[in-house]
Amino acid sequence: MHPATDILLSLFLVFIAAQITSELAQRMKMPGVVGEIIAGVIIGPSVLGWIAPGQVLDALAEIGVVLLLFAVGLETRLEDLKRVGLAAFMVGVLGVVVPFGGASLWAHVEGFAWDKSMFIAAAFVATSAGITARVLQEMKVLQRKESRVILGAAVIDDILAMLLLGIVVSLQGSNSSGSNLNPGHFVIILVEAVAFVLVIGWFGTHVARRRSAWLDKPLNPMSSLNIVLALCLGLAWLSTKFGLAAIIGAFLAGLIASETDKREQLEHQTRPLLALMTPFFFVITGSKVDLQLLATPEALWLLTLATVLAVITKFIGGYLGALTLGNRSAMAVGMGMVPRGEVGIVVASLGLAAGVFSNLIYAVIVAMSLLTSVVTPPALAWLLRYAEDPTTEDPALAVAAQPTTDKPSAPDHGASREN
Amino acid sequence: MHPATDILLSLFLVFIAAQITSELAQRMKMPGVVGEIIAGVIIGPSVLGWIAPGQVLDALAEIGVVLLLFAVGLETRLEDLKRVGLAAFMVGVLGVVVPFGGASLWAHVEGFAWDKSMFIAAAFVATSAGITARVLQEMKVLQRKESRVILGAAVIDDILAMLLLGIVVSLQGSNSSGSNLNPGHFVIILVEAVAFVLVIGWFGTHVARRRSAWLDKPLNPMSSLNIVLALCLGLAWLSTKFGLAAIIGAFLAGLIASETDKREQLEHQTRPLLALMTPFFFVITGSKVDLQLLATPEALWLLTLATVLAVITKFIGGYLGALTLGNRSAMAVGMGMVPRGEVGIVVASLGLAAGVFSNLIYAVIVAMSLLTSVVTPPALAWLLRYAEDPTTEDPALAVAAQPTTDKPSAPDHGASREN
Repeated sequence: MHPATDILLSLFLVFIAAQITSELAQRMKMPGVVGEIIAGVIIGPSVLGWIAPGQVLDALAEIGVVLLLFAVGLETRLEDLKRVGLAAFMVGVLGVVVPFGGASLWAHVEGFAWDKSMFIAAAFVATSAGITARVLQEMKVLQRKESRVILGAAVIDDILAMLLLGIVVSLQGSNSSGSNLNPGHFVIILVEAVAFVLVIGWFGTHVARRRSAWLDKPLNPMSSLNIVLALCLGLAWLSTKFGLAAIIGAFLAGLIASETDKREQLEHQTRPLLALMTPFFFVITGSKVDLQLLATPEALWLLTLATVLAVITKFIGGYLGALTLGNRSAMAVGMGMVPRGEVGIVVASLGLAAGVFSNLIYAVIVAMSLLTSVVTPPALAWLLRYAEDPTTEDPALAVAAQPTTDKPSAPDHGASREN
Repeated sequence: MHPATDILLSLFLVFIAAQITSELAQRMKMPGVVGEIIAGVIIGPSVLGWIAPGQVLDALAEIGVVLLLFAVGLETRLEDLKRVGLAAFMVGVLGVVVPFGGASLWAHVEGFAWDKSMFIAAAFVATSAGITARVLQEMKVLQRKESRVILGAAVIDDILAMLLLGIVVSLQGSNSSGSNLNPGHFVIILVEAVAFVLVIGWFGTHVARRRSAWLDKPLNPMSSLNIVLALCLGLAWLSTKFGLAAIIGAFLAGLIASETDKREQLEHQTRPLLALMTPFFFVITGSKVDLQLLATPEALWLLTLATVLAVITKFIGGYLGALTLGNRSAMAVGMGMVPRGEVGIVVASLGLAAGVFSNLIYAVIVAMSLLTSVVTPPALAWLLRYAEDPTTEDPALAVAAQPTTDKPSAPDHGASREN
């Protein structure tokens, strides 16, 4: 009689698994998100098979990560982002160039033609900001300069990765049927995406600062939340129309809302939304890890190589870009850029559909994208504590000793700030 | 590159349409939910075709109504429900018997055999509590006795309707292949459903009252919300396993949570969840109204007959059951039971799949179910004000004059309370 049974069971299983594993992870001094991703691996098709990712769960995951980046934007001030603008730009650019170059070279050495090598390399490029944003929010360090650099760089990274993928796709088959590459086309795409971010970011925050009285007008006390949620969904959709990830638009909507005088109330009201929806993103991400893949030694070896390459190249790119922040902060920034998450998976799907990737390459890239998401949270949490306090050695002790201390004025830290 | 574009656009359109129309409806002194349903008709396939109901939107709608009934349960005390137990029971029983009898008779007069007539009549039975619950919440009258009777009756109604549908389905084809009816089977179903509601309701609230300290244990300040949300999703799923609507389980979860000492904090935290999710339920409900149906005079005539019959029989059943509350309150209760919403649609789908209904009968029943939901909110709002204040004549004036006054001690009202 009631057809909703299956989906309600999936919702319940995802939600309860996320709560339990997140709690366990936190008791083991790990970010809760690690527990949620592992919960997804366990209840997903690889192990227990209790949930099967599909349209509905994917949509809930998308809503979850959109709300998360909206909330992160809400806790971020445009002024603070501007102050780290140059570092964020360098991290964004080098975080694209180094992994793309490294992975192209590797794929070519493995025996692929240059056009295919670059397609494979495109899957190594785009950072997925969701995982890192969650770690930063969980650790309550969104106000630190490393966090602001990572968030700014994620926006730049997404624009460049989108552009690069477009170029690489149009390069395919250029040997046989002549080049499809039209430089003017890509200049237009770049200009559109940059214009979208700048216009929405600058103009939106400017309007919000001057006119936040429009949030007070409606009858319903919930209405200011409703208005910014509409803005969030609208910009998330609009940014996909410009070829960018939905989370970029959601982050911009959060930035705009954070300039209004309703900021604190909105932060407060957004928290229950995150509590309900974000577990879906992380559990579904975990449920997509295909452990069967690890069954053959060849795949396992390729996966290890690809993951190490993905982590190291992104880390180096981000690290070099952020060196003006000092050595330790630059390491935290580099690690924060490592997760590829669902963006790598999208590129892999495109490559499979276009006949460029074999099933093995596809599976390896998907697993690599997810593994980068799984390894990042503990490493990032440790590096953030290390950057903050030079005496940090054991992360478990460190988190117990100073759970929320913000920027102690240690000499080393002061030195890194001079830049 | 980003496959989520379509679903994000649908989310945005549903959400923004709901906000605008809800605001307009409220300015016209109508419940906001009327605007949201009309928004669904307009942006749905019937008119603009901007959204197409599908798996994802249906799931979001289901989550929306589950959260709504959870929130309504959270604002309800078991003690208050018990105090109106007898009236609620009578409303539940008569609200099933009168529409079932009336519709069976009508269908038989229209020329159907008795077994098919009873199947058709089953679609006239089940009240869908979502619409009424929203009106009661919007008007802030959940504490009034009419509201408590309606909510209690909705639980009883759902049990009886589920049972009746099972019996009617098993009666089909009894003329040709002998009766499938096994009375023992239905006694078991009835006992299971009643036991589920009583055990969860009594035992759950009892435990919650004594041991609400378990909500304080976890590290995360959001955790008490997470625990009750897990309870809500779990009981919503479980109640579908007992043949009941998911909203019954969600309502029970809310009742349990309302006995804890975190009640007010939870009410506060649930509001943003409702703001985000409930518009989906009402807009999607509206989007399923098929206006094409109204194109033929025959269908229009059948639809008018069916809707009038559905409204009148349910109203009379509820009214008679609630007469102990006094004449005016009984009218409000009767009207509160009128919406059939998605439950009638589920019965119609079953009948179509079983070959019992023609496409025309199917379309008429679906439209009737939705029309009962559309006509209820304004009538219910008016009757609730009328029951509260005997001088009410113009609902627009009444709402302007006393937006939230609770139970004025007018003589007429006092008289109705004696019972």
